Amino acid sequence: MDFNLSCPIPKSEYDKVLLAHGGGGTLSHHLLQKIFFSQFKNELLDVQHDGAMFEIDENKFAFTTDSYVVSPIFFPGGNIGELAVNGTVNDLAVCGAKPLFISAGFIIEEGFEIEELWKIVLSMKSAADKANVKIVTGDTKVVDKGKGDKLFINTSGIGLIEKDVNISPANCKAGDVILLNGKIAEHGIAIMSAREGLEFETEVISDTAPLNGLVDLILLTSKNVHVMRDPTRGGIASSLNEIASTAEVGILIDENKIPISEEVKGACEILGLDPLYIANEGKLLVFAAEEDSEKILNVMRSHEFGREAQIIGKVVADNPKSVVMKTLVGSTRIVDMISGEQLPRIC
Amino acid sequence: MDFNLSCPIPKSEYDKVLLAHGGGGTLSHHLLQKIFFSQFKNELLDVQHDGAMFEIDENKFAFTTDSYVVSPIFFPGGNIGELAVNGTVNDLAVCGAKPLFISAGFIIEEGFEIEELWKIVLSMKSAADKANVKIVTGDTKVVDKGKGDKLFINTSGIGLIEKDVNISPANCKAGDVILLNGKIAEHGIAIMSAREGLEFETEVISDTAPLNGLVDLILLTSKNVHVMRDPTRGGIASSLNEIASTAEVGILIDENKIPISEEVKGACEILGLDPLYIANEGKLLVFAAEEDSEKILNVMRSHEFGREAQIIGKVVADNPKSVVMKTLVGSTRIVDMISGEQLPRIC
Repeated sequence: MDFNLSCPIPKSEYDKVLLAHGGGGTLSHHLLQKIFFSQFKNELLDVQHDGAMFEIDENKFAFTTDSYVVSPIFFPGGNIGELAVNGTVNDLAVCGAKPLFISAGFIIEEGFEIEELWKIVLSMKSAADKANVKIVTGDTKVVDKGKGDKLFINTSGIGLIEKDVNISPANCKAGDVILLNGKIAEHGIAIMSAREGLEFETEVISDTAPLNGLVDLILLTSKNVHVMRDPTRGGIASSLNEIASTAEVGILIDENKIPISEEVKGACEILGLDPLYIANEGKLLVFAAEEDSEKILNVMRSHEFGREAQIIGKVVADNPKSVVMKTLVGSTRIVDMISGEQLPRIC
Repeated sequence: MDFNLSCPIPKSEYDKVLLAHGGGGTLSHHLLQKIFFSQFKNELLDVQHDGAMFEIDENKFAFTTDSYVVSPIFFPGGNIGELAVNGTVNDLAVCGAKPLFISAGFIIEEGFEIEELWKIVLSMKSAADKANVKIVTGDTKVVDKGKGDKLFINTSGIGLIEKDVNISPANCKAGDVILLNGKIAEHGIAIMSAREGLEFETEVISDTAPLNGLVDLILLTSKNVHVMRDPTRGGIASSLNEIASTAEVGILIDENKIPISEEVKGACEILGLDPLYIANEGKLLVFAAEEDSEKILNVMRSHEFGREAQIIGKVVADNPKSVVMKTLVGSTRIVDMISGEQLPRIC
């Protein structure tokens, strides 16, 4: 280890971490690639999936981690606790793993209300029960007042992958269809409306939900699922770009097919935000062979978290590494990776 | 799930989280028991070991998590990054597990220097290499300036437990000897001296180190190791009390046998601190059958992290659930669980 190894990001580029480095866009990726991946390089990390996958004897496992810093910690439709449980459950599920065990690490700011902590713990317990996972180990740290922000939670998780399941961006190929289980951008807009005091005719609530039940059903239905992803930070645009880039394929989506509510559409117009880039916490993108698309769509629609599922696009050979959208008016536009982030601390 | 379940800590007791709740003493335990364990109750969590242990088919695993909020993030002998890697390696090792994979979750305060992040990542890579573990998955969040404190790191880890290894507080029994691998309280004093600008003739440096190599050697040498613990937050006093309490045994230690440097002793006198309660980050307590004590001691002393190992005490049938120390002057005193914490944000 050469501790004099010079920093791979020159000061002339940037010398401080920016909020946008946490946004899941190109700046996040730059920091990850240059600082973290360059050093931590190994065959498991390099896959850059939502979790690491490894085998011990005959068993395949997935292992994943996420820290939650959402603000405010209570928001329409949920709180930081259930978000932390569902988020890690979902990261495991999209690896094709059945979530088994979860850890919970709490960083609490001095002065945080015990009653609020209690409510969050209750909802974590409830979320864990719903997802059929156990919280088996944990840690609590307290930082001085003004050195944190109420509560941050890290959850890490371990899941078991069925022997015949093989989910990886590398499997995705031209001709695959892309399915989405429901309306986009609800989590991000719920957080924004809580922050900004926005009011809509119908309240927009976070879509936070455990996706492992839905994923189980899909994997039982089709042996031709190639990639799954839960499009959180950075929205479906960022997830689709990541997959296009990793799999070196083109992606074509149809704006007309992307489920979105009128309230969310309205809020995005008011706030000047593009819903494709806004965080979801209960959405699932599925890439599968065209031949199975109808039966996957049907089984998704049979599940409580997939009632509004749609086939939103397909994988194409043209324009590798890019995402193109056929717009409502019939023209096409490139859906780029966003550079910074529209909404800091959304999860 | 009854979300109206009232908070088990009445407001008359305390209504806000205190720094002392993060100290590893009785207040920490109170919060853990009342708020977390009461809800997350399950057979793995209930063991209250440093990590959860579970079996999948023929294989036994350990799973553990810790968040690091140490301040300052660079201190004599190390930084938050290697501390985070070593800490999780050690939590796995004291479960009798060979650490395999580690996750790293970063919560970065906006404005944090990229150069500092780079140095920390380099030392994490180096620590992972030394401990022979891989960092396989991670997450980066950025919080606004003033809502964090430079950098917090969560590491979670998975380890594999050899089939014939069975380490658990429940195994410890009267007659067992207690071994310690070296000098106590160095990490805590290194942090305090960095904070307070204390200067000693010889600088006190943190003992942060990976203990899995030493643990491997011990487990190869003896099949009669009953409990191991790395006495971090709350020092050896807290770890010994936890074990005495869980195993419902008495513990008798000999002050004369506890390794401690003159500098640390001096610093503790100046600061009014009891070294038994001060954090270590490279110390190992081993409870083993008396018949194997000499060979364990010898093999510990053959290892770079055990040169100054000592037999510091034994498990007794008297005074169950308490720790008694024979002092330097020959009297005895009870070594209680500390209530709050002497040193906040030590790890």
